[in-house]
Amino acid sequence: MSTLNDTIAAIRPLDNEAAWAADERLNLLTKPPGSLGHLEEIVRRYASIRRDGSARFTHGALAVFVADHGVAIEGVSAFPQAVTTEMLRNLASGGAAISVLARRFGYVLKIVDVGVMTDTSSAPLDNVTYRRIGAGTRNFVSGPAMSTADAMRALEVGIEIARELAGRGASLIGIGEMGIANSTPAAALLSALTEIAPEGIVGRGTGLDDAGIRRKIEVVSRALELHRESFESSKGGGIAMLAALGGFEIAAMAGVCLACASLDVPVVVDGFIATAAAGVAERIYPGLFRHLFFSHRSAEGGHALVLDKYKVRPILDLDLRLGEGTGAALAMNVIETALDLFHNMATFAGAGISGKVR
Amino acid sequence: MSTLNDTIAAIRPLDNEAAWAADERLNLLTKPPGSLGHLEEIVRRYASIRRDGSARFTHGALAVFVADHGVAIEGVSAFPQAVTTEMLRNLASGGAAISVLARRFGYVLKIVDVGVMTDTSSAPLDNVTYRRIGAGTRNFVSGPAMSTADAMRALEVGIEIARELAGRGASLIGIGEMGIANSTPAAALLSALTEIAPEGIVGRGTGLDDAGIRRKIEVVSRALELHRESFESSKGGGIAMLAALGGFEIAAMAGVCLACASLDVPVVVDGFIATAAAGVAERIYPGLFRHLFFSHRSAEGGHALVLDKYKVRPILDLDLRLGEGTGAALAMNVIETALDLFHNMATFAGAGISGKVR
Repeated sequence: MSTLNDTIAAIRPLDNEAAWAADERLNLLTKPPGSLGHLEEIVRRYASIRRDGSARFTHGALAVFVADHGVAIEGVSAFPQAVTTEMLRNLASGGAAISVLARRFGYVLKIVDVGVMTDTSSAPLDNVTYRRIGAGTRNFVSGPAMSTADAMRALEVGIEIARELAGRGASLIGIGEMGIANSTPAAALLSALTEIAPEGIVGRGTGLDDAGIRRKIEVVSRALELHRESFESSKGGGIAMLAALGGFEIAAMAGVCLACASLDVPVVVDGFIATAAAGVAERIYPGLFRHLFFSHRSAEGGHALVLDKYKVRPILDLDLRLGEGTGAALAMNVIETALDLFHNMATFAGAGISGKVR
Repeated sequence: MSTLNDTIAAIRPLDNEAAWAADERLNLLTKPPGSLGHLEEIVRRYASIRRDGSARFTHGALAVFVADHGVAIEGVSAFPQAVTTEMLRNLASGGAAISVLARRFGYVLKIVDVGVMTDTSSAPLDNVTYRRIGAGTRNFVSGPAMSTADAMRALEVGIEIARELAGRGASLIGIGEMGIANSTPAAALLSALTEIAPEGIVGRGTGLDDAGIRRKIEVVSRALELHRESFESSKGGGIAMLAALGGFEIAAMAGVCLACASLDVPVVVDGFIATAAAGVAERIYPGLFRHLFFSHRSAEGGHALVLDKYKVRPILDLDLRLGEGTGAALAMNVIETALDLFHNMATFAGAGISGKVR
């Protein structure tokens, strides 16, 4: 438990003075005050998380966690479970959407197997880090998805990866995932966290038909019924929820959120499944959301509803529902662009430009 | 008149087969079908405008037109008119927001003086192309902003610039502008075009106070009253509206929209003022909007209302209200990223990934 406790103990409130210093410079730049809108808010937020009024940017990194899910056996995904391993290979060889985006934007791409069904570690895939908690979770409609000890281990994998990426100098870290059926645990967690009913949250995932979506709602409802007592009886409930309903990749992403907050590194949360991880992290450390950027409003299920409930504004709204950190990468590029404007635009004084008259 | 007529005569309908070919490839890529959401729509649209199912991208270019406005004398801007010339210098020396974005994204940046009050052409500024129609427009509350001949000339400047940029190989062109007080002619034009009342359209521009905004609404209302007859009596009304209410930069941007459609080059429309230009171009050639991308929902005045009325979906929603083509540049980067995914992701067959089961 000490890694998680140490991490939480190291989280500080945001640095408002850094935000004010950034704001002061924003108002010197050759543009009408406030006219860069949400980009200006992004710069202030970045500065306050980094505790750095000059909002220096070094480089971005993406942590993509891959795992399997016992609940897939319930027929809640449009694709077969084998696709998780196949996509791990695709990520390893650079053909996935997130591979293209990471190359394009120059971001470090860390792919972590936290528990894919098929173990490839004996002939390890290129570019894959193995931190397997197990060969997928158990089916959570008939018991907890994992033990509390495994939930802690998966969280700690996220903490370890965040520390490594930040230690190598990343000043902005995106989280993403891949795992067949993982929109089911994410929906269950988001329903448990927000108290929005499963019908309002469950989505089509990779493309379920109508019968599939009815089945998925029923699966989530049954799981919530089964486990509600266990997480209501535990303090806060974040780790109990993870153990009961989670996935290894969801727990690991929650770990990245917590560790990055302790390291003054902003996290960019991808879509539906990453939001479930962020929600768990917020449950473990209330106030954590202030250390995160929400990248986009996903087209999956009730993601829009969840973001509204959480009162967070996403950066993009492109109807994405792919996962892998794709929305996070796109939003990181917007954040980096906002910082570029902040650092490299001329000032009114420097450019000899007149001020307001009315 | 022949340049404009030739341009309009050369516009063809979109190539649906190219869109279908692009869609076919989109469905082979290693992602759930449709999961890249709006990015997939962008790829299909780009292919259909380019008449190229493989949606090749060469490079992006930005055309930024700068001009002054006689109506500034009515006190409709928070900044003095001198700022137009000062900002032209800032654009020339690379300190403006759009300068930073063009450098960052590697876009050609074409800055065109189409009628700034102060003539700098005798000691020409670096990186500025001079196509001055006059030393600013006239105050349109007491007469037309410009003659019909000047409106045509300004349109033709836009056509010339579009042909030049496309001729040098740009496959995506963004339009932007700078000109103190130009949100007033844009509001007047958008009100005339959409029949939304001035109160619903007029915004704070560079940061007007409450008294200023009341004055601006009154100025727009008086101008519409004065000129309505002139553009109602003319066929279609697009050019009559431009002459009565326009700015040189607005006319030039309308010219870029028309010329690019004739050249199979998609245009990315910036914010409030560029939307007025696009609206005029659509009035001149109904159906033109299909050849354009709307980059973002601006925070200026009734831009959201106008986009709704036009039934167009912007790519971004970042509360920007800076102009200069900044929103266009950000959206061009999203378009380019969508094309990169389209070209460089692996296919299901290539990566050996299983298909859907339900």
